[in-house]
Amino acid sequence: MRRTLFLGLSLTCVASVAIAQDHVAKFVRYSYQNQVSYGVLDGSQIRVVDGDLFGDHRLTERTVPLDAVQLLAPAVPSKVIAIGLNYRSHIGERPVPTYPGMFAKYPTSIVGPGADIVMPPDAQSLHYEGELVLVIGKKAKNVPEAEARDYVFGVTAGNDVSERIWQREDLQWLRAKGSDTFGPIGPVIAAGLDYDDLLVQTRLNGEVRQSERTADLVFDVAAIVSYVSRYITLYPGDLIFTGTPGTTRAMQVGDVVEIELEGVGILRNQVAAAGN
Amino acid sequence: MRRTLFLGLSLTCVASVAIAQDHVAKFVRYSYQNQVSYGVLDGSQIRVVDGDLFGDHRLTERTVPLDAVQLLAPAVPSKVIAIGLNYRSHIGERPVPTYPGMFAKYPTSIVGPGADIVMPPDAQSLHYEGELVLVIGKKAKNVPEAEARDYVFGVTAGNDVSERIWQREDLQWLRAKGSDTFGPIGPVIAAGLDYDDLLVQTRLNGEVRQSERTADLVFDVAAIVSYVSRYITLYPGDLIFTGTPGTTRAMQVGDVVEIELEGVGILRNQVAAAGN
Repeated sequence: MRRTLFLGLSLTCVASVAIAQDHVAKFVRYSYQNQVSYGVLDGSQIRVVDGDLFGDHRLTERTVPLDAVQLLAPAVPSKVIAIGLNYRSHIGERPVPTYPGMFAKYPTSIVGPGADIVMPPDAQSLHYEGELVLVIGKKAKNVPEAEARDYVFGVTAGNDVSERIWQREDLQWLRAKGSDTFGPIGPVIAAGLDYDDLLVQTRLNGEVRQSERTADLVFDVAAIVSYVSRYITLYPGDLIFTGTPGTTRAMQVGDVVEIELEGVGILRNQVAAAGN
Repeated sequence: MRRTLFLGLSLTCVASVAIAQDHVAKFVRYSYQNQVSYGVLDGSQIRVVDGDLFGDHRLTERTVPLDAVQLLAPAVPSKVIAIGLNYRSHIGERPVPTYPGMFAKYPTSIVGPGADIVMPPDAQSLHYEGELVLVIGKKAKNVPEAEARDYVFGVTAGNDVSERIWQREDLQWLRAKGSDTFGPIGPVIAAGLDYDDLLVQTRLNGEVRQSERTADLVFDVAAIVSYVSRYITLYPGDLIFTGTPGTTRAMQVGDVVEIELEGVGILRNQVAAAGN
């Protein structure tokens, strides 16, 4: 009996890995002929999804060419949570946290690939932070760590834009982290990857500035989702920024910043002055 | 000419005051026969509003008795912002801020009158904070202070529930302030009051614990809305908690906490253990 049970579990595991390798799906949200839709990337084509990817929806046979659409932020979250100090390379001299440190961004922080990161007139030190971003797939409350991965619909690349002076001097980080356009995400949501071992890279004007694997996260995907859900109910489409590796520096108006997440692609945005 | 102009202005002022006194409207959101609606309070009756109070809607002639409905949180915000250290009586020995200090709560923090404030299993020091809460009426971005009041739809009473140990020890205040049920609001949204001079009172099990007028706010309603809108686009239904006066203390499971806001009424909630 024991032997049979063991065999059953092994087969299940093998099957899961096979699915993960063969069935990585890339979801996009886009604007085409003045209409916003979800779709599934299929080479240079998008297969149109009717409805809300995170609610009622249906994959259709209709396609539109990728180069004919404007890609948008691939999720429209009801909330955006972020985890701070989650790579040892970023923590520096500070103590390694013993539980995840949460802070907030807002739905109004979120912009898509190609969108401007708008520097407020009084911002002086706007830094990039390249990150793995989790996209929640179903309502999550008090989720045990062992089941937490089932609540992740997929992942995308994110830039946790941060005004370092405000972050240091304000009562809390909200203005520094949660201002409008301070949360680019995209270009796609990839599902079926091993989220716990992906390369995150940040390039500023083409030069690599951050480069580390998510295997180095202090709190991994399951730990984060489980912890957050103990306090805050997560809904489909909600986002969790998982923390940034290494060190960062200030961006200037006109700079182009790219966050590349393995299996997801390149999220490219430029810094613009307010009022442009 | 000067005299005529002066008379004109005076008449305008008198007319405004008369409108404020005569046309205070109280809006509710409620559940009745398994349907959620907005309405306008009219004595012991609710006049039904068809549609979304913050979008397309129409005041109907239909009524339902107030005592037949369950009142819900009167707004369903896309974001919840809060201001810290905004009464001198609460600041204590700390320096008075020179600009508003923002932090975040979440839409999932918001509950209505009569709902449980659910104490997470690991919470140890859950405090009430009675507050004036602003309800935004139209999209606001970069709003000058002189126009800021036009963007406030009305006000409600709020309880900025705060876990003091988490607030002190966590990386940021998000868990302490933004956990589920940590933001009761209600019972109504009142429009047409002088929001800058209302009495806020908190009673714990019937005993007055906080009592101060909004005239004592360090940053008043217009200053707050204008400041927040410089960084974060506000949408109809969004909430801003404006800060709490005086000192607070820990609540226990079973405690009943009432926030009474002049012109709005009493927001009453009880503290419950998780899993009830």
